[in-house]
Amino acid sequence: EDSFTIAGKHYKSRLLVGTGKYKDMQETQLAIEASGAEIVTVAIRRTNIGQNPNEANLLDIISPDKYTILPNTAGCFTADDAVRTCRLARELLNGHKLVKLEVLADQKTLLPEIVETLAAAALLVKDGFDVMVYTNDDPIIAKRLEELGCVAVMPLAAPIGSGLGVQNPYNILTIVENAKVPILVDAGVGTASDAAVAMELGCDGVLMNTAIAAARNPVLMASAMKKGIQAGREAFLAGRMPRKRFASASSPLDGLIG
Amino acid sequence: EDSFTIAGKHYKSRLLVGTGKYKDMQETQLAIEASGAEIVTVAIRRTNIGQNPNEANLLDIISPDKYTILPNTAGCFTADDAVRTCRLARELLNGHKLVKLEVLADQKTLLPEIVETLAAAALLVKDGFDVMVYTNDDPIIAKRLEELGCVAVMPLAAPIGSGLGVQNPYNILTIVENAKVPILVDAGVGTASDAAVAMELGCDGVLMNTAIAAARNPVLMASAMKKGIQAGREAFLAGRMPRKRFASASSPLDGLIG
Amino acid sequence: EDSFTIAGKHYKSRLLVGTGKYKDMQETQLAIEASGAEIVTVAIRRTNIGQNPNEANLLDIISPDKYTILPNTAGCFTADDAVRTCRLARELLNGHKLVKLEVLADQKTLLPEIVETLAAAALLVKDGFDVMVYTNDDPIIAKRLEELGCVAVMPLAAPIGSGLGVQNPYNILTIVENAKVPILVDAGVGTASDAAVAMELGCDGVLMNTAIAAARNPVLMASAMKKGIQAGREAFLAGRMPRKRFASASSPLDGLIG
Amino acid sequence: EDSFTIAGKHYKSRLLVGTGKYKDMQETQLAIEASGAEIVTVAIRRTNIGQNPNEANLLDIISPDKYTILPNTAGCFTADDAVRTCRLARELLNGHKLVKLEVLADQKTLLPEIVETLAAAALLVKDGFDVMVYTNDDPIIAKRLEELGCVAVMPLAAPIGSGLGVQNPYNILTIVENAKVPILVDAGVGTASDAAVAMELGCDGVLMNTAIAAARNPVLMASAMKKGIQAGREAFLAGRMPRKRFASASSPLDGLIG
Repeated sequence: EDSFTIAGKHYKSRLLVGTGKYKDMQETQLAIEASGAEIVTVAIRRTNIGQNPNEANLLDIISPDKYTILPNTAGCFTADDAVRTCRLARELLNGHKLVKLEVLADQKTLLPEIVETLAAAALLVKDGFDVMVYTNDDPIIAKRLEELGCVAVMPLAAPIGSGLGVQNPYNILTIVENAKVPILVDAGVGTASDAAVAMELGCDGVLMNTAIAAARNPVLMASAMKKGIQAGREAFLAGRMPRKRFASASSPLDGLIG
Repeated sequence: EDSFTIAGKHYKSRLLVGTGKYKDMQETQLAIEASGAEIVTVAIRRTNIGQNPNEANLLDIISPDKYTILPNTAGCFTADDAVRTCRLARELLNGHKLVKLEVLADQKTLLPEIVETLAAAALLVKDGFDVMVYTNDDPIIAKRLEELGCVAVMPLAAPIGSGLGVQNPYNILTIVENAKVPILVDAGVGTASDAAVAMELGCDGVLMNTAIAAARNPVLMASAMKKGIQAGREAFLAGRMPRKRFASASSPLDGLIG
Repeated sequence: EDSFTIAGKHYKSRLLVGTGKYKDMQETQLAIEASGAEIVTVAIRRTNIGQNPNEANLLDIISPDKYTILPNTAGCFTADDAVRTCRLARELLNGHKLVKLEVLADQKTLLPEIVETLAAAALLVKDGFDVMVYTNDDPIIAKRLEELGCVAVMPLAAPIGSGLGVQNPYNILTIVENAKVPILVDAGVGTASDAAVAMELGCDGVLMNTAIAAARNPVLMASAMKKGIQAGREAFLAGRMPRKRFASASSPLDGLIG
Repeated sequence: EDSFTIAGKHYKSRLLVGTGKYKDMQETQLAIEASGAEIVTVAIRRTNIGQNPNEANLLDIISPDKYTILPNTAGCFTADDAVRTCRLARELLNGHKLVKLEVLADQKTLLPEIVETLAAAALLVKDGFDVMVYTNDDPIIAKRLEELGCVAVMPLAAPIGSGLGVQNPYNILTIVENAKVPILVDAGVGTASDAAVAMELGCDGVLMNTAIAAARNPVLMASAMKKGIQAGREAFLAGRMPRKRFASASSPLDGLIG
């Protein structure tokens, strides 16, 4: 059966989801269930997973027994902050080593700060973490992060929370072609077809949050995304027909327009 | 449960498929099963559904007990030819009234001949047929065909057999917004995300053949398309987030670039 | 020198402009001068070119001695209305035979009504007019209009006043490849690169109004459009490099993504 | 008059060109003349500008009296190589301080190596060079290069020699909006409309080589590019109309499709 592997663990669901921006805990839970996700990412700086013993704990509804909890460093703007946050997560989660590293450049764009990201990735790998790393869509940077020892590389489709879909499919394709670790699109997907496009490019999975949480009906959108991911994955494996101007054309498009 | 209605009959599957270009009858059968289609279109001029009693009959594997058989007029280049072909189909199928009308302009482009299509649609409606009609993506022509009494209007996404995907989403959107009958994209879809895009525009369904039959693995692509259609439908119903430049933007895109 | 011919007359400028939506007569005049246009289209139903002897006459600033005046049937929604309007124009312009036919479907979309357009074109050609005809981007309809005897066919890039640019480049390309009369994109261009794209597809010219008149600085935009048209024309004649994924690729894009 | 400034010198032409891939010296010269370029970039590792006294010297046809010669580090894959090459150029050109820095990652993609680029930029600025720097289209990296003291930042539109045009217009727009130094698109332009698009995004200029040299008629394409750049610049200054679905729409596109 089709699956992919991160840090030695196999996953059948290729849709990874976040927990932010939902109306309430119940909607969070229902949407995550509908998504079929096996990996759920949690912003350690914004979400209580035990830091504040007297407040509602997300892990009560998203149980680590059922889901792989993926602590992330959202809200960190330096390598130091990110490393510190990962260590806190590891403590809170009893030695859990899998983290999603994101070092952002600023509050306005939420784009990754690549130099700090590279530094943090190196530190975290050295410190024994299994690092999934959020990055821009530069194929060379993606390769560097793989070479540093990251267990998965996660280029953006478009800025976080933009919903613009895959802005540069050739870059994503090049990243996929060059990779020996799983490539997951992280950020920028807006609707189900965007998720399918990412998978058709050969990505191993897609991580998203806003596209589900900010839909009019998040639970239904979670289901749409689950199917969109599966559709794109199967289409990738099935090998699509070439694009041609007409059925009667003897060769595919020649690159003169497009 | 979500369904749509053509000529008084309800359908849950929004993926309609053809039977051409497969390697053999078995692949045809397996792909159609994997697609989950409830409506299967058959080119009366190319496929034996009883005209030639001594040859293999497609209906032996695609049973009218299980599927709604949708005879189509592929290969007809005039209104007269198309009307004659529909009458032959009605005879062969014991009075079956549902047909897919296509009057093509030429062998090279396989684009619809709109003037002949309008004429044939009027004749067929008058003659008691339930007409699903293949057309270009002109919103005004689509409305005329609805006004003539067609039970479904089927604009192209792109030329038949091209696999280019939806070339003019605004036209498809306008057709959908103006319609009182089901709108199904017919022709031009190439991969699962294309099908999802059509559904996200609000189409009631998608009809395809080459995108499945000409994939490297047609049966798997049929499954991909089934899920892509469902994903797009659910995303449409769920109401996607607006596209924005950044999460921090207070308003969606302003139309200055794109 | 590079030129094209309509109804026996040669033109060097491939930018045709309208006269609507400007702030005042002076801006109209300055923008048209900056555009370098040799053909200026005038909506007979909205513009005084002599029908109302006591009002300002557009021909006083856009002189028929300097420009080819192209009366158009904007605001006509039936073939009859359009034919009547062309005859009025011929009278007002002393037997002038060149007209731009447009029969629109409705006020909301301003899309062409193709059946009425075909009827009107046939009537006008029979009545001795030289007909330039506004149409949708259906390559088959474009060919029919040429076969009816129109001297130029003018498919839309996108709806009138939308500024969306060329929505379906493959359709425009097919129209150009099949044509024996000049093909001019009419309507939908929004900025200079859109005009260049139309010309790079091999069009003989572009007609526009809103893109110039509704720019913040119409006179400067007119100059931009003039250069954009020339740039696109020269690029078409120069023969562009093929699109490839990398300089090192031995063949152009293969149509698998795009 | 409209101009932009690099290292204290004003330029009216916003088209910068390379000298590679031409048939012969004469074609190089004619194309560069037709382009109207004032800045011509020269690959020090591939072109003789005096290193080999007994061979043809490019400067004999592209005179430093007439053009600003912009030595570039094409073919350098490390910061050290690039710095060494710039110093050689400075010597050959009598203390000339303006250079275009490019540190590439590999021969296949010719994509920039961002970490080495940052290192080289810092070294060169410290050593007194005026550094124009080739980079990816990451807005954060572009800002870092500006902060290091580069006099111009040159993001790619697409990979060198690809001719794909601007792949990520939102990134280019963000780079432009954030910049205090000139932003010039470098690499990836394929035809005149691509150049116009870059300028309409607000770029200060475009540098290209293959799009001209690999056209069927390079000299004519050089002229097309000159006009395309001017058209895009004027359109940017003129302020384009908003994109709308129809003229009758009261607001621009809402970001739900596109």
